[in-house]
Amino acid sequence: MNGNDSLSDILNGVRSGKISVREAVAKLRSMPYEDLGYAKIDHHRSLRTGFPEVVLCQGKSSDQVAEIVKRLAARNPVVLATKADEGAYEAVRRVVPNAVYHNEARMIVVRSPESAPQDKTEDANYILVVSAGTADIPVAEEAAVTAEAMGSRVERVYDIGVAGLHRLMDQKDKLDNANVIIVVAGMEGALASVVGGLVSKPVIAVPTSIGYGASFDGLAALLSMLNTCAEGVVAVNIDNGFGAGYFAHLINK
Amino acid sequence: MNGNDSLSDILNGVRSGKISVREAVAKLRSMPYEDLGYAKIDHHRSLRTGFPEVVLCQGKSSDQVAEIVKRLAARNPVVLATKADEGAYEAVRRVVPNAVYHNEARMIVVRSPESAPQDKTEDANYILVVSAGTADIPVAEEAAVTAEAMGSRVERVYDIGVAGLHRLMDQKDKLDNANVIIVVAGMEGALASVVGGLVSKPVIAVPTSIGYGASFDGLAALLSMLNTCAEGVVAVNIDNGFGAGYFAHLINK
Amino acid sequence: MNGNDSLSDILNGVRSGKISVREAVAKLRSMPYEDLGYAKIDHHRSLRTGFPEVVLCQGKSSDQVAEIVKRLAARNPVVLATKADEGAYEAVRRVVPNAVYHNEARMIVVRSPESAPQDKTEDANYILVVSAGTADIPVAEEAAVTAEAMGSRVERVYDIGVAGLHRLMDQKDKLDNANVIIVVAGMEGALASVVGGLVSKPVIAVPTSIGYGASFDGLAALLSMLNTCAEGVVAVNIDNGFGAGYFAHLINK
Amino acid sequence: MNGNDSLSDILNGVRSGKISVREAVAKLRSMPYEDLGYAKIDHHRSLRTGFPEVVLCQGKSSDQVAEIVKRLAARNPVVLATKADEGAYEAVRRVVPNAVYHNEARMIVVRSPESAPQDKTEDANYILVVSAGTADIPVAEEAAVTAEAMGSRVERVYDIGVAGLHRLMDQKDKLDNANVIIVVAGMEGALASVVGGLVSKPVIAVPTSIGYGASFDGLAALLSMLNTCAEGVVAVNIDNGFGAGYFAHLINK
Amino acid sequence: MNGNDSLSDILNGVRSGKISVREAVAKLRSMPYEDLGYAKIDHHRSLRTGFPEVVLCQGKSSDQVAEIVKRLAARNPVVLATKADEGAYEAVRRVVPNAVYHNEARMIVVRSPESAPQDKTEDANYILVVSAGTADIPVAEEAAVTAEAMGSRVERVYDIGVAGLHRLMDQKDKLDNANVIIVVAGMEGALASVVGGLVSKPVIAVPTSIGYGASFDGLAALLSMLNTCAEGVVAVNIDNGFGAGYFAHLINK
Amino acid sequence: MNGNDSLSDILNGVRSGKISVREAVAKLRSMPYEDLGYAKIDHHRSLRTGFPEVVLCQGKSSDQVAEIVKRLAARNPVVLATKADEGAYEAVRRVVPNAVYHNEARMIVVRSPESAPQDKTEDANYILVVSAGTADIPVAEEAAVTAEAMGSRVERVYDIGVAGLHRLMDQKDKLDNANVIIVVAGMEGALASVVGGLVSKPVIAVPTSIGYGASFDGLAALLSMLNTCAEGVVAVNIDNGFGAGYFAHLINK
Amino acid sequence: MNGNDSLSDILNGVRSGKISVREAVAKLRSMPYEDLGYAKIDHHRSLRTGFPEVVLCQGKSSDQVAEIVKRLAARNPVVLATKADEGAYEAVRRVVPNAVYHNEARMIVVRSPESAPQDKTEDANYILVVSAGTADIPVAEEAAVTAEAMGSRVERVYDIGVAGLHRLMDQKDKLDNANVIIVVAGMEGALASVVGGLVSKPVIAVPTSIGYGASFDGLAALLSMLNTCAEGVVAVNIDNGFGAGYFAHLINK
Amino acid sequence: MNGNDSLSDILNGVRSGKISVREAVAKLRSMPYEDLGYAKIDHHRSLRTGFPEVVLCQGKSSDQVAEIVKRLAARNPVVLATKADEGAYEAVRRVVPNAVYHNEARMIVVRSPESAPQDKTEDANYILVVSAGTADIPVAEEAAVTAEAMGSRVERVYDIGVAGLHRLMDQKDKLDNANVIIVVAGMEGALASVVGGLVSKPVIAVPTSIGYGASFDGLAALLSMLNTCAEGVVAVNIDNGFGAGYFAHLINK
Repeated sequence: MNGNDSLSDILNGVRSGKISVREAVAKLRSMPYEDLGYAKIDHHRSLRTGFPEVVLCQGKSSDQVAEIVKRLAARNPVVLATKADEGAYEAVRRVVPNAVYHNEARMIVVRSPESAPQDKTEDANYILVVSAGTADIPVAEEAAVTAEAMGSRVERVYDIGVAGLHRLMDQKDKLDNANVIIVVAGMEGALASVVGGLVSKPVIAVPTSIGYGASFDGLAALLSMLNTCAEGVVAVNIDNGFGAGYFAHLINK
Repeated sequence: MNGNDSLSDILNGVRSGKISVREAVAKLRSMPYEDLGYAKIDHHRSLRTGFPEVVLCQGKSSDQVAEIVKRLAARNPVVLATKADEGAYEAVRRVVPNAVYHNEARMIVVRSPESAPQDKTEDANYILVVSAGTADIPVAEEAAVTAEAMGSRVERVYDIGVAGLHRLMDQKDKLDNANVIIVVAGMEGALASVVGGLVSKPVIAVPTSIGYGASFDGLAALLSMLNTCAEGVVAVNIDNGFGAGYFAHLINK
Repeated sequence: MNGNDSLSDILNGVRSGKISVREAVAKLRSMPYEDLGYAKIDHHRSLRTGFPEVVLCQGKSSDQVAEIVKRLAARNPVVLATKADEGAYEAVRRVVPNAVYHNEARMIVVRSPESAPQDKTEDANYILVVSAGTADIPVAEEAAVTAEAMGSRVERVYDIGVAGLHRLMDQKDKLDNANVIIVVAGMEGALASVVGGLVSKPVIAVPTSIGYGASFDGLAALLSMLNTCAEGVVAVNIDNGFGAGYFAHLINK
Repeated sequence: MNGNDSLSDILNGVRSGKISVREAVAKLRSMPYEDLGYAKIDHHRSLRTGFPEVVLCQGKSSDQVAEIVKRLAARNPVVLATKADEGAYEAVRRVVPNAVYHNEARMIVVRSPESAPQDKTEDANYILVVSAGTADIPVAEEAAVTAEAMGSRVERVYDIGVAGLHRLMDQKDKLDNANVIIVVAGMEGALASVVGGLVSKPVIAVPTSIGYGASFDGLAALLSMLNTCAEGVVAVNIDNGFGAGYFAHLINK
Repeated sequence: MNGNDSLSDILNGVRSGKISVREAVAKLRSMPYEDLGYAKIDHHRSLRTGFPEVVLCQGKSSDQVAEIVKRLAARNPVVLATKADEGAYEAVRRVVPNAVYHNEARMIVVRSPESAPQDKTEDANYILVVSAGTADIPVAEEAAVTAEAMGSRVERVYDIGVAGLHRLMDQKDKLDNANVIIVVAGMEGALASVVGGLVSKPVIAVPTSIGYGASFDGLAALLSMLNTCAEGVVAVNIDNGFGAGYFAHLINK
Repeated sequence: MNGNDSLSDILNGVRSGKISVREAVAKLRSMPYEDLGYAKIDHHRSLRTGFPEVVLCQGKSSDQVAEIVKRLAARNPVVLATKADEGAYEAVRRVVPNAVYHNEARMIVVRSPESAPQDKTEDANYILVVSAGTADIPVAEEAAVTAEAMGSRVERVYDIGVAGLHRLMDQKDKLDNANVIIVVAGMEGALASVVGGLVSKPVIAVPTSIGYGASFDGLAALLSMLNTCAEGVVAVNIDNGFGAGYFAHLINK
Repeated sequence: MNGNDSLSDILNGVRSGKISVREAVAKLRSMPYEDLGYAKIDHHRSLRTGFPEVVLCQGKSSDQVAEIVKRLAARNPVVLATKADEGAYEAVRRVVPNAVYHNEARMIVVRSPESAPQDKTEDANYILVVSAGTADIPVAEEAAVTAEAMGSRVERVYDIGVAGLHRLMDQKDKLDNANVIIVVAGMEGALASVVGGLVSKPVIAVPTSIGYGASFDGLAALLSMLNTCAEGVVAVNIDNGFGAGYFAHLINK
Repeated sequence: MNGNDSLSDILNGVRSGKISVREAVAKLRSMPYEDLGYAKIDHHRSLRTGFPEVVLCQGKSSDQVAEIVKRLAARNPVVLATKADEGAYEAVRRVVPNAVYHNEARMIVVRSPESAPQDKTEDANYILVVSAGTADIPVAEEAAVTAEAMGSRVERVYDIGVAGLHRLMDQKDKLDNANVIIVVAGMEGALASVVGGLVSKPVIAVPTSIGYGASFDGLAALLSMLNTCAEGVVAVNIDNGFGAGYFAHLINK
């Protein structure tokens, strides 16, 4: 099944006799995925959701990551792997030489030659990624690299926490002109509410595990963002820059 | 300041002598809000974010709600109040006779005559609101009524929990054609992940407090949605149908 | 689609021309559920899982419960509704006169005349429901009534907490001869571990919200049961007698 | 012992023979408190900490509250009782007719005639009490009434949440001129951080239990305030307006 | 006492004079366990529960593990040790040369020559072990190895998370034909509910600690599984593959 | 079995032929408890632990409480029921007229005429029950009434919280002369540590649910007491005055 | 002040002129502690509580531990240090050569030559330390070594968890004859309830951090022990063997 | 903009023609911060809050810390960096040679030559920093070093936990004469309440993560301090010595 066959196509084939009943049952069953035993690579996903499966490296061996990335890269123009350490990258590069490692974002990106990203013109819609502090940048980069890999133009403004609001105000134009805004913040995560109150654009809040003591590894920021008094703000998991970047691109595209 | 004055307009006025320095300082200061003492009604918000302040009734007296709604209704084409009990509605109706109460959603909506919602054509982009169970409907309705009041076309599909996936599959067309999907679910909240894996559209997950025991008043569903293995899913606070409807409209408009 | 049609039946019908392609698509789509708007009654479930959908009354209006039970009762030999208060039962009885209310278990059971439960012979396999205290009995009864309604023989032994182990030991024969054991306990929930260590049969532990202070509404018992040092013990949600009774019947049948 | 006797005074009295050893032992022991059996009224506290014991009504019967307030009022110029419902106030008024009930703050205040509060001049140092929302006002009033009863000038600014920052900015002068600022906020509690970043004055943050879902009865606001990225911000217990008002007065006096 | 003596046997021996009262008391007391000081090896357990004590290596020194395994292996046809690192295995192998280490499952299995597992015929009842992701495989393997060591036939299907439901649907036959199903999933653990809704067989859900942020080391998956809206699903502790495998075998045998 | 028969007695009876094997098995089995169906009254407990079963009224119907108390009172000199509301007491008094209700402690005490408590002489060892506040007294009384019913002399000192240490110091003699000390405190529970640091006697700490906000219904006091820096301090459950009184009597007797 | 001076002694000295007022003030002030800057060694504690200050090594440098132990050893017959790693012991041994390290208990014990412990006769009252598993032994040893160092006779019974109750029953005599029982258990901690139900002696429960997943580092065992349905059971902090041993000795002495 | 320009100054400049409209817009925008890309250094903060931005090193690379400190040191008389390890200090020293590392406090302090701290006279107002234990000293030092760097006189009293109250009482004069008191305590954190009850000065409580088991990394101490029964006590985050020192200086200055 090449993924484009519709249910009616198959049934018409049966009616016309081109496809036997047995074949039809098999076709309906055999969705396009590859089975590696330890992983079932969901090649169908790009047909279904518009983007191939993304590899979360955490909990997988470097060899498993490399093999999965290789298989995905063989069929997709862009492949992403997140929470990747350097060991995983080394393993990937051995089998997919054009893989690129984004150090701060801890991501591996593979692009087929024909999918080279075009330079976005200055007037393309953009996603603005905002971080409250310097320590939140790795998560912010995960969001930015993800959205860029998917094809969005991304602008970045880092370290504009609410303890110095003028730094934020100074970026008011960038906020106003963005199509979607991602706010990345640890500690008390107040930046999401402040940005949410200033703009009319959708805001995706990403709590980070930055902080100590009663931040409880990001719980404080997460609860803060979920309880925001600003409208137009949603949240993703703690440190889930990828999820925010992916969602932002869905809106922005 | 009428909200359209830019900073440059005021400064040009100062330069040309049309506006005195004293006036300019006042203009820059006097943002348009009304002060009731117990509330500062943010009339500026609709200029800033595209929609007027929404009244969360919880924790306010019925009289406070009524007064705030009245003031907002005097200046805005549409006013929303959420988590409103019947007492609050009675108080509002006394001062704003055309207020409408959405019983299941527990919302008050006020529309000025000229803002009567036009019937959406069949081919308008729509937001799909999906609930996992019958008991989740009040939160789903809060989302739906909010988005409709803001001007979006909304479709509803209720009671399609994951324990009977075929009910969900049967709605595959509605899912595929939606512009944004809101998934409302209590208990284990798995529906968000399942829907997220089926579609290429942004999914906004709303955990509800439906459940008992280790649901801990919606915590189980919330954590489930934050940890979704599906891409393109974000979350709002437990029972926050309003937040999801508002955000969905921002994307859909 | 009557639920018995297999995929091959439909495809064979297409091939032989008895079923048009259009009809086949419809058949494949139209799974057997009834749509009440606020509920999609999953009549297909009894075909799929061997037992019809069970109605959780919590969060539904009495009228909704009554309507759903009526629809289910029209097609199924046995219908169960859990966490039902007397109001829900009154509403059900008006439309399904032969509905029976189990007061302690807070359950409604409807049986068609032809499905009258046969008296189980003394040597039928039985499920043993054990409660640690008197206050745990409502949850224990929910488990027992569920399993009986599904067709299992059930024996009950109540109030044999670990602070008086001889009461438990005295029931050793009943424990040894059971096919499955359900242990219902609040407070520290230790009974599950003690029973689990004594028998070779599967033990299903049900924590209850009985207790005060640091029982945190059943959390202490739940954690205790999940961390049991005994083998052959699994757990369900706090106060979920229904879930334990259902699962026990799956094993016992 | 009148509370002013120093240790040396007593010992000198012993040396000079004015006080017998037995008397000295008794004096050293008998600190000034009154024993009602169910309460030991700490009359010594005003000597020790500058203000008499404050009565937390929660968990005490109305009669107990009334008796304790009566005893304190007999010896102190000002007496406060917090978390007082109307029943407690009725009981107090029967025995202390000049007791005043602050309805919104749920406080009882008793002043002796000679301690009538003087009108504060416009240039007295003041404590600014700021609330994020209308629903936070009861806690804010508890703080304000407490500080006023202790002798501080208090200014109030209510409903200036971060979703409409201009309302806050409009109060910049009041913020800058305050001697201490109390920020009362529920939901995500971000106002504390925003105010803390704007001013050079000490900020006391009071989380409130206003909110729903993942606010967990004020936990979200509390964690947010404890993890603030602003400097010069401390926190008190959820809904503890009294504690903030008391502390603010210690700084302001 | 050889474990087969019943209470009546002993008492009959006393009556007939074959056993002295003193001996009888001793017999009744001396249950068959071996005391190593730091461990009391419960040889009686296989008589009581049908399977010997299983060694949880966590928190024990390698030497302690080795000694306990050696003693158990001397009396039992099969011995299992869980959560075993390689150091523990090395220590065991020195004293029990035929011990086998299952690397992914982190288990040690010892079989006596006569207990060599027979190849299961194709039509034997089987337990199906399903994992949501690749990273969940170690816990899934712990379940599978346990059940196999106890004598069950086990089938494995790994990496069929709900974000790509077709991978699950493709395994529908395997699901339908299984006698018991173990679902192993981290993150939001939704797979348990989805599988539970599809089948009529008992489902044992195993939450894993795979995930990050608000997964809180498996808490999200655990709560999700406990609150499942599917019937016929029970849960075990986070990462407790052993417990699930053991319980599944009790049902399957 | 009258509870005094030892295992040897029974076996000797078997040997001598006075007791048949069948009778012996029955005797060994039939431990002295009464089975009411919903409760198995453990008459054996007073033989085993020195005091009869104590009835926790919470979660039991008034009729159940009354019946259980009646049965216990028929065989024991003293019977206690805890967490009893007035309804339970009324039900008990109808069947056990000499039952006494301790209103503040919410306990029912039944004494047989012959067990009338003797007045303790002044020099009997005593248990000192200390409460931090007035609102903690009900829990303190539960502890005191329990220990008195069991036969201990009890002294009470209430409302000596750490915010007025001199009230505590003034009771130094009572502290020093006590045999055991029970400290009952809510809020931050610091009194347990302070008392623990002053004395050489065992201290039993009882956290109460008195407090608000971040006291989380007694969690703050409980954690405080468990983490005490003082030596010689143990804790019981939140609001468990009974448990502390019972334990104190075990030490004091 | 030698610690034996009573308040009256000092005052009599003042009266008689033997002690000047200045000296008396100093005497009353100068309680016997040594100030090392980073530590104030409380030599007074042994006078006050019957045993010298015990050193918790966690969070102190090895040098700090060594210095504090040296100072305490100079004035006390027995000194204890807990949670001590080998580095701390090496540092101590350099300055206190007769210090002994209890490896499993992670404790340092110093005895002066004259305080050599006498062999306890067989009929001395003893404390029984019971552990549920092998992995709980380090905490159990901390309890045992503490009580022995303080002068109590201690008996140990390890690895008698509730999954093999006969191992516990076999120790019934030891349980019945003990004066106090310490139960050390991780995982679900059920052993405390089981032992508590069998005996009439005070039981001190020590939860341990042994377990995984939902044991949450000992929380499950702690909650279990606090919610015990057995009477006569109290708890200490997770892993606090020292606290249990200390308290047990207070009762046993 | 030099930070001293008021809004009126700029507007007057515009009116008089000294400043062009374009320049004015720029001036109003360009708040004084330096943008390093990964950090926006808030030079404006010292104008706004009276003290420059403080660098939290956690989560920043050593190079980032060094660069930020260098930039701040170029414009401010005093610069602080907290939670700094030695690596960060080495990096800073390479670019700011006069940086000083406070080892115990884990802080870097940079002073310009002209800001050398003057020796405080004996009669200057002082902040008293009190620690409960030796292990709390690093957090206490963070508070003390911060306040000293800001210009306050600080006195220290360490290791005066509530288990030896006389050590605290002995410091009564120091407590009474302080202007503000910082109480640093882990474990149960009771010292804050005890100190708060003794004095009339504001008390800032700092919970530390010192403790084990149910201290839950400082949660027990934090909750204890938030629920204090003493008046005049506020709290900061766990281990946040810096926050306490900063706040204390705001009061003390």
